Amino acid sequence: MKRKLRMGMVGGGKDAFIGAVHRIAANMDGKIELVCGAFSINPAVNKESAEELFIPQDRCYANFEEMITKERELPEGERMDFLTIVTPNFVHYAPAKMALENGFNVVIEKPMTISLEEAISLKEAVERTGKTLCLTHTYSGYPLVKQAKAMVQEGYFGKIRKIVVEYPQGWLSQLTEREGNAGAAWRTDPKKSGRSLAMGDIGTHAAHLAEYVTGLKIQEVCADLTSFVEGRTLDDDGSVLLRFENGAKGVLMASQISAGEENALRIRIYGEKGGLEWANEDPNNLIIKMTGQPRQLFRTGNAYQAPFTLSSFATHNTRIPAGHPEGLLESFANIYRNFALTVSAKLEGRAPTAEELDFPNVDDGVRGMAFIETVVNNNESNEKWTKFVL
Amino acid sequence: MKRKLRMGMVGGGKDAFIGAVHRIAANMDGKIELVCGAFSINPAVNKESAEELFIPQDRCYANFEEMITKERELPEGERMDFLTIVTPNFVHYAPAKMALENGFNVVIEKPMTISLEEAISLKEAVERTGKTLCLTHTYSGYPLVKQAKAMVQEGYFGKIRKIVVEYPQGWLSQLTEREGNAGAAWRTDPKKSGRSLAMGDIGTHAAHLAEYVTGLKIQEVCADLTSFVEGRTLDDDGSVLLRFENGAKGVLMASQISAGEENALRIRIYGEKGGLEWANEDPNNLIIKMTGQPRQLFRTGNAYQAPFTLSSFATHNTRIPAGHPEGLLESFANIYRNFALTVSAKLEGRAPTAEELDFPNVDDGVRGMAFIETVVNNNESNEKWTKFVL
Amino acid sequence: MKRKLRMGMVGGGKDAFIGAVHRIAANMDGKIELVCGAFSINPAVNKESAEELFIPQDRCYANFEEMITKERELPEGERMDFLTIVTPNFVHYAPAKMALENGFNVVIEKPMTISLEEAISLKEAVERTGKTLCLTHTYSGYPLVKQAKAMVQEGYFGKIRKIVVEYPQGWLSQLTEREGNAGAAWRTDPKKSGRSLAMGDIGTHAAHLAEYVTGLKIQEVCADLTSFVEGRTLDDDGSVLLRFENGAKGVLMASQISAGEENALRIRIYGEKGGLEWANEDPNNLIIKMTGQPRQLFRTGNAYQAPFTLSSFATHNTRIPAGHPEGLLESFANIYRNFALTVSAKLEGRAPTAEELDFPNVDDGVRGMAFIETVVNNNESNEKWTKFVL
Amino acid sequence: MKRKLRMGMVGGGKDAFIGAVHRIAANMDGKIELVCGAFSINPAVNKESAEELFIPQDRCYANFEEMITKERELPEGERMDFLTIVTPNFVHYAPAKMALENGFNVVIEKPMTISLEEAISLKEAVERTGKTLCLTHTYSGYPLVKQAKAMVQEGYFGKIRKIVVEYPQGWLSQLTEREGNAGAAWRTDPKKSGRSLAMGDIGTHAAHLAEYVTGLKIQEVCADLTSFVEGRTLDDDGSVLLRFENGAKGVLMASQISAGEENALRIRIYGEKGGLEWANEDPNNLIIKMTGQPRQLFRTGNAYQAPFTLSSFATHNTRIPAGHPEGLLESFANIYRNFALTVSAKLEGRAPTAEELDFPNVDDGVRGMAFIETVVNNNESNEKWTKFVL
Repeated sequence: MKRKLRMGMVGGGKDAFIGAVHRIAANMDGKIELVCGAFSINPAVNKESAEELFIPQDRCYANFEEMITKERELPEGERMDFLTIVTPNFVHYAPAKMALENGFNVVIEKPMTISLEEAISLKEAVERTGKTLCLTHTYSGYPLVKQAKAMVQEGYFGKIRKIVVEYPQGWLSQLTEREGNAGAAWRTDPKKSGRSLAMGDIGTHAAHLAEYVTGLKIQEVCADLTSFVEGRTLDDDGSVLLRFENGAKGVLMASQISAGEENALRIRIYGEKGGLEWANEDPNNLIIKMTGQPRQLFRTGNAYQAPFTLSSFATHNTRIPAGHPEGLLESFANIYRNFALTVSAKLEGRAPTAEELDFPNVDDGVRGMAFIETVVNNNESNEKWTKFVL
Repeated sequence: MKRKLRMGMVGGGKDAFIGAVHRIAANMDGKIELVCGAFSINPAVNKESAEELFIPQDRCYANFEEMITKERELPEGERMDFLTIVTPNFVHYAPAKMALENGFNVVIEKPMTISLEEAISLKEAVERTGKTLCLTHTYSGYPLVKQAKAMVQEGYFGKIRKIVVEYPQGWLSQLTEREGNAGAAWRTDPKKSGRSLAMGDIGTHAAHLAEYVTGLKIQEVCADLTSFVEGRTLDDDGSVLLRFENGAKGVLMASQISAGEENALRIRIYGEKGGLEWANEDPNNLIIKMTGQPRQLFRTGNAYQAPFTLSSFATHNTRIPAGHPEGLLESFANIYRNFALTVSAKLEGRAPTAEELDFPNVDDGVRGMAFIETVVNNNESNEKWTKFVL
Repeated sequence: MKRKLRMGMVGGGKDAFIGAVHRIAANMDGKIELVCGAFSINPAVNKESAEELFIPQDRCYANFEEMITKERELPEGERMDFLTIVTPNFVHYAPAKMALENGFNVVIEKPMTISLEEAISLKEAVERTGKTLCLTHTYSGYPLVKQAKAMVQEGYFGKIRKIVVEYPQGWLSQLTEREGNAGAAWRTDPKKSGRSLAMGDIGTHAAHLAEYVTGLKIQEVCADLTSFVEGRTLDDDGSVLLRFENGAKGVLMASQISAGEENALRIRIYGEKGGLEWANEDPNNLIIKMTGQPRQLFRTGNAYQAPFTLSSFATHNTRIPAGHPEGLLESFANIYRNFALTVSAKLEGRAPTAEELDFPNVDDGVRGMAFIETVVNNNESNEKWTKFVL
Repeated sequence: MKRKLRMGMVGGGKDAFIGAVHRIAANMDGKIELVCGAFSINPAVNKESAEELFIPQDRCYANFEEMITKERELPEGERMDFLTIVTPNFVHYAPAKMALENGFNVVIEKPMTISLEEAISLKEAVERTGKTLCLTHTYSGYPLVKQAKAMVQEGYFGKIRKIVVEYPQGWLSQLTEREGNAGAAWRTDPKKSGRSLAMGDIGTHAAHLAEYVTGLKIQEVCADLTSFVEGRTLDDDGSVLLRFENGAKGVLMASQISAGEENALRIRIYGEKGGLEWANEDPNNLIIKMTGQPRQLFRTGNAYQAPFTLSSFATHNTRIPAGHPEGLLESFANIYRNFALTVSAKLEGRAPTAEELDFPNVDDGVRGMAFIETVVNNNESNEKWTKFVL
């Protein structure tokens, strides 16, 4: 690639949390530049955001429709290469579909859409247009998560039996949505968020992480969702018993009323011969527990000797040597970098490598929406086990 | 009390794991002495065990019936004060009942009996005889578990919403019961163990811990039990969704096929204002997470100033100053010490204090058996939720 | 600031570790763009590096002299705003001095120069030219290090008595410099590195951290430096007793032969009322230990309520909410961002805020060189205590 | 051994901290019984202590002289086998010497005496009488400390280069000795404590631990001792540079004014190939860091397979299976148990095994007193390095 990829952005105006994260992730490696945006439906915010981001006013658009239309008319050497969508869930589908159909690649914040139906339609659009769609399931971008996946895949733990994935947060322990928190406001509104709060916002991260690391698909669920905070209609907490395709069992917990917790995503996986443990709040340690052996701590960025050599998927996603902690922004940037490498490969006419293709895509997005659908269906019914809808 | 309490023991011959633990726990504070035993049904092992324990041969009995009968005939100043029962589950009920009915107090290793029916009968015997029965749910003996209970009770966390208790072990990941492991052999045999393996052996610990700390009773369960290891009939892993009496929800996991885990009992409790976390493998730290405050680490044995003063239930069960780690044997010894203090109080004709009475008793034993019954019933049925049988 | 700041770079060709780190740190916030460089004295590497970094060939210069001369001739709206120097120690002084004298601001990797004399001369140049010099002592860029400093400053711990700062690494446990490791090769060569290896490369980080957090200056040292690996002339390990200006005592350890360690910089500070602990490998936790209180864990990015509100210096240097780990690259980027904010403030004719000015500068660089000088002098003499040379 | 060993005790009246610890340690394994004592020079306290400990009044003696004299006159099957001395330092030597010379074995709390001279005299008495003297350096009793020693010995880490041992406490951060704390009062009084406070009370533990684990002797020291709390004459903090006999270097810190610390003894040892770390406050984890390998966590009580099999010295000193935390009382009890096994072996006329002999003895006591002497001498002089006095 002889030039930076050009990024446009829908949403992410000043003071929006996740838009800033996407920009940092895109900036970090110097391979992407932000060239245009429709940052807010509030014209003043939109304009100010563009100024702060050094975007010329002629590429600060009123809305995504205008942006896609006008960018398409720009010469190839100027127009954006891809569109990043960081709006609330209910404004994911329309810009994504329009972008794809106008020849742009797409990055979307999860969950991919507001309904399974939209997700399936988006998958169809991706297949039809041949463009690349990237879904930012942040946590699978960590090097040690990739190391965990590699070790499971090579049979290090034997057949997988048990998976425990949990994602406790505490920030919705009160009626935060009435206290001026914009992110809480739309997430707790079914029209903007979809059928689920906790399961959609963070449960999908947990489900994706479990399937990503183990390579196993969830087949049946048994769920108990609760809305603990009075005045809230969607679930702010849920626990789900899982059954996987190979006979493995599991538990998934997603909670936003676990008061005092920050962002404590954690996964534990047990096979016949041993298990692993990884936690987002301590991401540079992968704990390996094998029967009959001392516990092992794999740490990011080490040049371990065989047979402990870190997987190429781990090292490809590491920037600095061992002992220099990398965090969530680097994990997020890995997703952007791999997406950019894949798009560039296609631009250059070469096949992306497996490492470059290692980012969540439209299939993961569909599975996430199916997870929400299945879990909410089960919770609303009296049947003990509900088969995955896909 | 002007003398040591005298203990007899059924089971616990040399090389039996849990008998030795009971003896260490009883010895530690110098308030109890072992005076007699029926340590094994194997006469040679019985004799050798007595010798190793410095028990004269005339107080080494062939079986519990002989022991109870003969001890009863000894003068008051000589005969045992209580009987400790450390045999497999199916030999709990008979010696306990006979001991109670012959005027002896009783300590039993959990689970209390092999069936709920036996448990109810034992409760009736305790009430009828007025003797004291102590059930060794080890983990509630830790000072910081007691601190956690005290903080929940005083409303530190607000109304409790969510309880996650888990007990992963890995020692039954293989068919250990066929490899000469006596403890594995009887535990995996329904005739000796009861209707459940993992839920009975360690799930009851987890359930007791959750109810002990929160003061809330489990009302409904939804369970998925599995027997992962081929050739085994009882559950070696299970996950249970819990509903508590105040509307709190929870998850309980008990697993003996979590390969690589040792004895990783852990509890997390969340209320409206914050949460707590405690783990058996790191028992001298109680992590307190309050909304809007730095995380706090309460540590065993500290003379904290108000408002952080440790509860009298915590300090009563601590032997040494902060920074000198106390472990499982001290926790176990706390149960023995409180039991001994209660028995002595009764002997002296005074009412035991709340701190002295703070050990698991026959009611906890009944609840444990009801827990097993309810969970296994639910697992065998198609109904999503099963009400607690008691 | 209505535009990005323009950065030039000396050193940092492809495969050079620290140059890449500087670029990531400069990129992250979208406020700086790399516009030119003299990346390597090897012309081929220089050219390839420029290509990979999307730098046009006319701004890829043969050496720093050419770069400074030619950039100076460019119109104001085009030429670089500052020069980043990421060459080995012995090539810090010349480009820094020339850049300053030609009107460019400067960022230098530590230690600032190869001798105290050079450092003093650079300080004089900074004062004379009025330009800004930034020294990348990475670790003081972490938000919780700044929180620690703020708490010390406000008297949270009372008068400071004891400071323990240690920096163990293991990467020079063997004769790595003979195994093709370029970074090891020049660091172990006194002509390129200066009078010290471990004390210069990482001891200066430790000394800076101790003085930064406590606000106290080291006054006397007593050192024992060792060159453990045969065939090496400079110290690869050292321990130093410290005496500070207020009567505080301390210990500083810097070691590159602590085999198995990664980058385990850690500081502990004790005052009359309590202490603190912070470690680079776990940078999002600041442990506070106050007499008579539970231990407290301050964590990055929290909106704690008074009296625990995080310092404005901590929040100013945090990008994402609590529970999303930030790492060394963000810490490094904080230094760049504060430097850029300061330079922009000056360009805009306004006084930088205290938060913007919070990055290591030429005075810290002089102190670092004086530290090396003093410690090596003491080690080579028989006197127990040596006064700080400045 | 067909009977319990009989213990007498000097000191350790009710409310004395360390006496109770010795009794718990002696009780735990059921191999020792307390039969007599001179618990306090206050007759009322002495009497009450005896009652609480179920000691008949005729074996509650006014002082150690009376005890030794009268016990000696008792028939062999009745009189005590050994004397435990838990008085302040200045009352160690006299009872120890008298006990030895009257045919009794001895257990002494550390430091062994109040001066090096006394220590040497005691060593002479031990050699002359052939009795066994045990010094309770608690921390070398932990199973994982013994595992560490075994691994160093077998060359796991290669030649040892660097040793860092630290023992920070905070309990003397204020003038505790004036606040009715008896333990603080005598420890800060040179007449009762000796030439050093921190170095004597806990520095000797640290020095013993370093020499025990590495098998290397300290040869030279360079010390900086401080008395931080106004009104105190002895050192409450000290840092010492160490040089060992094989060229290894080290740092020893002992501090009782590290406010907020509990009992944070920690040791780190680095060899050519890797290092180890162990801490008293987390005693069931031994962290092993080898170059080029994932970090390893050896945990107490595991049946690891070769080549990780735990040393016989570790397993001999472990009571319960992995995951059941053992603490300081068990470590202390290991010392008592090994001492008792050694004494019993001698009584039975057989040679004790290496595992039985593995407890600190009179030689360790002499070395501890020499350590105090050397460090205080160095601190009071201007010479940089002082050779170990022995």
